[in-house]
Amino acid sequence: MEFRGAHILSVQQFNREDVDTIFSVADSMEPYAHRLRMTKVLDGAILGNMFFEPSTRTRVSFGCAFNLLGGEVRETTDVKASSISKGESLYDTARVISGYSDAIVMRHPQVGAVAEFAKASRVPVINGGDGSNEHPSQALLDLYTIRKELHSKGRGIDDMHIAMVGDLKHGRTVHSLSQLLMLYKNIKFTLISPKELRMPEDIVSNLRNAGNQVIETEDMEKGLSDNDTVYLTRIQEERFTTKLEADIYRGRFRLNQAIYTRNCQPNTVIMHPLPRDSRADANELDNDLNQHPNLAIFRQTDNGVLVRMALFALILDVTEQIDDSSSKVNWYTEGRFE
Amino acid sequence: MEFRGAHILSVQQFNREDVDTIFSVADSMEPYAHRLRMTKVLDGAILGNMFFEPSTRTRVSFGCAFNLLGGEVRETTDVKASSISKGESLYDTARVISGYSDAIVMRHPQVGAVAEFAKASRVPVINGGDGSNEHPSQALLDLYTIRKELHSKGRGIDDMHIAMVGDLKHGRTVHSLSQLLMLYKNIKFTLISPKELRMPEDIVSNLRNAGNQVIETEDMEKGLSDNDTVYLTRIQEERFTTKLEADIYRGRFRLNQAIYTRNCQPNTVIMHPLPRDSRADANELDNDLNQHPNLAIFRQTDNGVLVRMALFALILDVTEQIDDSSSKVNWYTEGRFE
Amino acid sequence: MEFRGAHILSVQQFNREDVDTIFSVADSMEPYAHRLRMTKVLDGAILGNMFFEPSTRTRVSFGCAFNLLGGEVRETTDVKASSISKGESLYDTARVISGYSDAIVMRHPQVGAVAEFAKASRVPVINGGDGSNEHPSQALLDLYTIRKELHSKGRGIDDMHIAMVGDLKHGRTVHSLSQLLMLYKNIKFTLISPKELRMPEDIVSNLRNAGNQVIETEDMEKGLSDNDTVYLTRIQEERFTTKLEADIYRGRFRLNQAIYTRNCQPNTVIMHPLPRDSRADANELDNDLNQHPNLAIFRQTDNGVLVRMALFALILDVTEQIDDSSSKVNWYTEGRFE
Repeated sequence: MEFRGAHILSVQQFNREDVDTIFSVADSMEPYAHRLRMTKVLDGAILGNMFFEPSTRTRVSFGCAFNLLGGEVRETTDVKASSISKGESLYDTARVISGYSDAIVMRHPQVGAVAEFAKASRVPVINGGDGSNEHPSQALLDLYTIRKELHSKGRGIDDMHIAMVGDLKHGRTVHSLSQLLMLYKNIKFTLISPKELRMPEDIVSNLRNAGNQVIETEDMEKGLSDNDTVYLTRIQEERFTTKLEADIYRGRFRLNQAIYTRNCQPNTVIMHPLPRDSRADANELDNDLNQHPNLAIFRQTDNGVLVRMALFALILDVTEQIDDSSSKVNWYTEGRFE
Repeated sequence: MEFRGAHILSVQQFNREDVDTIFSVADSMEPYAHRLRMTKVLDGAILGNMFFEPSTRTRVSFGCAFNLLGGEVRETTDVKASSISKGESLYDTARVISGYSDAIVMRHPQVGAVAEFAKASRVPVINGGDGSNEHPSQALLDLYTIRKELHSKGRGIDDMHIAMVGDLKHGRTVHSLSQLLMLYKNIKFTLISPKELRMPEDIVSNLRNAGNQVIETEDMEKGLSDNDTVYLTRIQEERFTTKLEADIYRGRFRLNQAIYTRNCQPNTVIMHPLPRDSRADANELDNDLNQHPNLAIFRQTDNGVLVRMALFALILDVTEQIDDSSSKVNWYTEGRFE
Repeated sequence: MEFRGAHILSVQQFNREDVDTIFSVADSMEPYAHRLRMTKVLDGAILGNMFFEPSTRTRVSFGCAFNLLGGEVRETTDVKASSISKGESLYDTARVISGYSDAIVMRHPQVGAVAEFAKASRVPVINGGDGSNEHPSQALLDLYTIRKELHSKGRGIDDMHIAMVGDLKHGRTVHSLSQLLMLYKNIKFTLISPKELRMPEDIVSNLRNAGNQVIETEDMEKGLSDNDTVYLTRIQEERFTTKLEADIYRGRFRLNQAIYTRNCQPNTVIMHPLPRDSRADANELDNDLNQHPNLAIFRQTDNGVLVRMALFALILDVTEQIDDSSSKVNWYTEGRFE
């Protein structure tokens, strides 16, 4: 795809070469994200960080990524405070807001809202999550993390074995990551979930049709063996009709040090899109793994900044100018990144 | 008036020369607002963007305007989170906040609150809307848009014919725009509204006393003919006692392609302060006019950035230094402004 | 203490030399805070301004302080919008957020939450208030103000007489200020409060054990005489079980011009952590003293910016580079600071 001026709405818009491009730019962002150097390549540019659904983590991550490129961030965090509550169409909101900023990140509770918004926008739009639908930067950072973690162990994404665990029905991140993994070859998916929260059938058959092996199981311990990566998820309580309904499934699949040691290969990378639910009745990923070298969950969020910087740099077409606008960093930056 | 260090609280503080000054500076902001060049003239300055009543659009517009001049923005979006809820006076809030920032924009639900705040502020304050009272930057951007649109058609503001349509009783923007138009000569106002939502009598008589022609009517189609500009408004639901009461008037006056073609002169500019209510039962300005070249509603919001940049530059006295602090823009900026 | 890379969590971590260091750096910030010059020493750095409990004043003060050093600010203002409501631990939040920013300010409703957060943070954390526990930057700005005010009258902190008035039980600021004053010698504390809202016993005995004189009284007029400083506080309504319970104490101790003239020495400095409750039934510090030269309450909040700039500069270790990154200010800055 042509990145210059493009909207980033769905993982489906990428081919394997596009993903390689994004990851290669993300790699080049590391010195800036890790404060070894700073760049002002987007000095003077403004990001409209429009979150019409709450999300501290993703909102701050996008905002920091834009700041780290030298740009400014204007944002909104509340749909009730917006003109949408006065009957304004997404078309109007898009025409107006895109007159203020140079790029827009939008999160919206409704499926398809960001794509509709993007159609009317005069500047590139990145989908920061539209309901249970898409969250492409999350899928990209997940895949980028897998690539990096496996690479450090001398392996690649093709022929990988991955287990996905938990609420695979509602988990937007496992859907998008699966889509993205279809660009690669011969992957073995082990999908571990309660029957009622299985991965949607169309995704499973797509994976199979693309030549991948898919095993669905409720037996977690068996499913955990023989994987390069285990990707855990939270019960998406907010997507259930009632909290009670979610309670049935909460805490049913948990990974901790003992289960990991008993079942996983010693090199298995542990991932989670976060937030993980650490309350006693859920605790899908135990704190006793916090010091484990294969626990990649915080490297995931760190990588999110790299990937988001890369997306901004690509759609605003400044990748070639980043190093020219760079200089050294003078403040305290020790002990930050592994 | 002397702009340096001044508060901008009401359209009543301007004479015609002042308006010309603002518009001339706004014109000079276009290269920066349209990202042809960038300026850092307010690098190091801080705007206190204090919104004690929700407003995404106006808040972000002011924030972007300050960013586009190179300054930083600190803001608040919620009155409940503020010390006002702990019994703090506006005097105290003003004394404190004006110690943090170089200029303040304030929106407040109470009539007169911003003026009271400004009295105690140590830095220039711009009224971003105080209840149903004043919203001077909106009136200025409306008039600036009229001037620009008519100019491109070889006409001026003097001797103009303008129709104002809708909730003229509660519409803060039509009140302020009318006040501002009194600085010009021989304007014909056609005020189209339900009888119960007529323009306040004192404004009507002021307009007449200043030598303008004012026609009040409930007959929209007749009223639309023979105008340079048609200015539509939304039923200001939030100013009615009940939603039911507002429902009586909702959708009574609507402009669409057919009505426009049937009644308006081919050159008539279509304006609306936005948000327009696009729900089926309201729809005061139909989407079938979205591609019409005379639809100026998004040029209005774009112009808002120019006018707000001009106000900041004037009250902080940096108009002469803007171009000296300017440089070229390197990122993707295509297809943004008409 | 070693400031470089340190967390600022409690006043108890400072010795007298540390306080002197902070105040000396704060002094050097004055030209920048007062816009005589600007500095870009933290250009490229990002503050995570994480307010999980509302506070306009403190949040904006910290944000402005970071901006005045040239850095950017990303922030959150709502705990409900955060992953904490999805069961995320403070450990996880800290690991994630500290991957985005170069320093973090955190306010949290729970005692000890900020310290727990700091343990897992990869960047320096400043406690912006944890429930009724600590708010060290407030205590520092209070003491800095006392030092400055008394110095201008030829006196120092040692041997000072200070009266603290109001809700001394719940007032976090009087607790922290008292702790800090234990670093100095031979101070006379007059604690004026309703019996039920007395200063906690452990603080009183600590003060006495450190060799200070402590008088506790309900007789305000008597207690006001013979002081260098009077420090008034608001009834901390939000810390009572019911509003009714708070109402019993509201308005019981008030200072106004007449009471001041009748009881205080002519040089007595008047302080209040703000917000003051100016509603008729409270009015602990009357507006008729607003023009009094000894009223230091707005100099207090102004000083807050200096102290917070100093803390950032110290923990990020840039104090030596501030002046090198400085330049002149070109915009309107008159009539700002006394």
